[in-house]
Amino acid sequence: MNWGLIDRYAKSLIKEAGHKIRVSFFNNIDIDSKSDANDLVTNIDREVEQFFISRIKRDFPDHKILGEEGFGDDVQSLDGVIWILDPIDGTMNFIHQKRNFAISLGIYAEGVGMLGYIYDVMGNDFYHAAKDEGAYFNDERLPQLEVTALSEAVIGVNASWVAPNRYMDHEGIIQLVQACRGTRSYGSAAMELAYVSSGRLDAYMSMRLSPWDIAGGMIIAQEVGAIATNMKGETPHLLGQDTFIVARPGLHETMLKDHIRLK
Amino acid sequence: MNWGLIDRYAKSLIKEAGHKIRVSFFNNIDIDSKSDANDLVTNIDREVEQFFISRIKRDFPDHKILGEEGFGDDVQSLDGVIWILDPIDGTMNFIHQKRNFAISLGIYAEGVGMLGYIYDVMGNDFYHAAKDEGAYFNDERLPQLEVTALSEAVIGVNASWVAPNRYMDHEGIIQLVQACRGTRSYGSAAMELAYVSSGRLDAYMSMRLSPWDIAGGMIIAQEVGAIATNMKGETPHLLGQDTFIVARPGLHETMLKDHIRLK
Repeated sequence: MNWGLIDRYAKSLIKEAGHKIRVSFFNNIDIDSKSDANDLVTNIDREVEQFFISRIKRDFPDHKILGEEGFGDDVQSLDGVIWILDPIDGTMNFIHQKRNFAISLGIYAEGVGMLGYIYDVMGNDFYHAAKDEGAYFNDERLPQLEVTALSEAVIGVNASWVAPNRYMDHEGIIQLVQACRGTRSYGSAAMELAYVSSGRLDAYMSMRLSPWDIAGGMIIAQEVGAIATNMKGETPHLLGQDTFIVARPGLHETMLKDHIRLK
Repeated sequence: MNWGLIDRYAKSLIKEAGHKIRVSFFNNIDIDSKSDANDLVTNIDREVEQFFISRIKRDFPDHKILGEEGFGDDVQSLDGVIWILDPIDGTMNFIHQKRNFAISLGIYAEGVGMLGYIYDVMGNDFYHAAKDEGAYFNDERLPQLEVTALSEAVIGVNASWVAPNRYMDHEGIIQLVQACRGTRSYGSAAMELAYVSSGRLDAYMSMRLSPWDIAGGMIIAQEVGAIATNMKGETPHLLGQDTFIVARPGLHETMLKDHIRLK
């Protein structure tokens, strides 16, 4: 497998998709609703996914595609090469803000993350990594993350998880919020993973993410020494929803041990 | 008073300060601590405030300056013309992220907001307004905000206010978080005010802000029809700390009436 070739191909495809999205803002956006009001989908989302699929199917016919909008393959195992794609991560931001959303892509071979990409389209910030070859922000090498104490940490955690919820004991998260330096919430898991990988956040957590939200970012995080797991401390599922936490070393352990208690 | 001249002067000064900040990232940042760990100050913060003060004192010697870093005047009343300035709003973002901070400036005459500015330095996004003459985003006129229902609203609220705190009954905020479409937190009051004014957020609230955090943004918000008050529904104090809420019409009333209960 020529991973250098695939890397250049994927970057080019993502940049081209970014252009399509920016151009789309000159046209109208039709808003549809999926399972609930928080889960907005647009025609652009679908068009961009179909653009990725048609290209990948044409140029890499034996690769599989797992995408948020469901136009890819019915992926039941991690055998072979799988492109795990979110054409627009942060759809609510996309609609309400026309910014703060990202294209997220992870390319896995036999379940191992080989290439990861997060593209903040409107900020024109490109994060990527290749397995064992480091992570980059706009083509500049990202440094290894150092240990940070909780009292010094800025954590990406949405207010939903501080309120009572059906997934976890929110009292532990209240203590977390009160013990850290500050919290932020940007509404895009991919962007928050990119922020942790580039040291702009020290941790990020969510109780319910899908493979395409994290597949690209996990490969980038791995290359800078961030720890990314589900909230049981295991590798997150790539074939279904799971809990998720990514953090600097040390901080990951502290958060899991002292603050996160699943129901 | 030639407000058109002052407007052009202030814009130019802010852009020049933005250049100084970007250049400063090539140098080291010394971090000092003020009253607590969340209240970080940098030498750049001080230098930028002193730059503003020296220029304003030279060119408008009878105007007063109220600034976060305290190098301005000892302002005890709102008489005369007062420049209310935060050279870097979102200092924690400035240090941790090198982005997501803003220069905030409001110019008041006899307590009335005449000119307001928020400059997202790294995003190069400039928001400004003149009293009764509209608000602008990168020189494009911002439309009047329309009424939005809480169930459709994306609200800027930090996790701190969802956790038990000494300022308000957090149960009301838990209900707010659960009733709205989503929440965000960016860590810069000025940027969140700019986001509300440009329709990217539907509301923003905080329990403890200073005049320089809101002085510029309030004038911009006013021009697009956003309602900005303290949490008693009054005009926020411009000479001391206060609570703060800004929201689209309708939503402001709903939040104050149904969700915000001060201790």
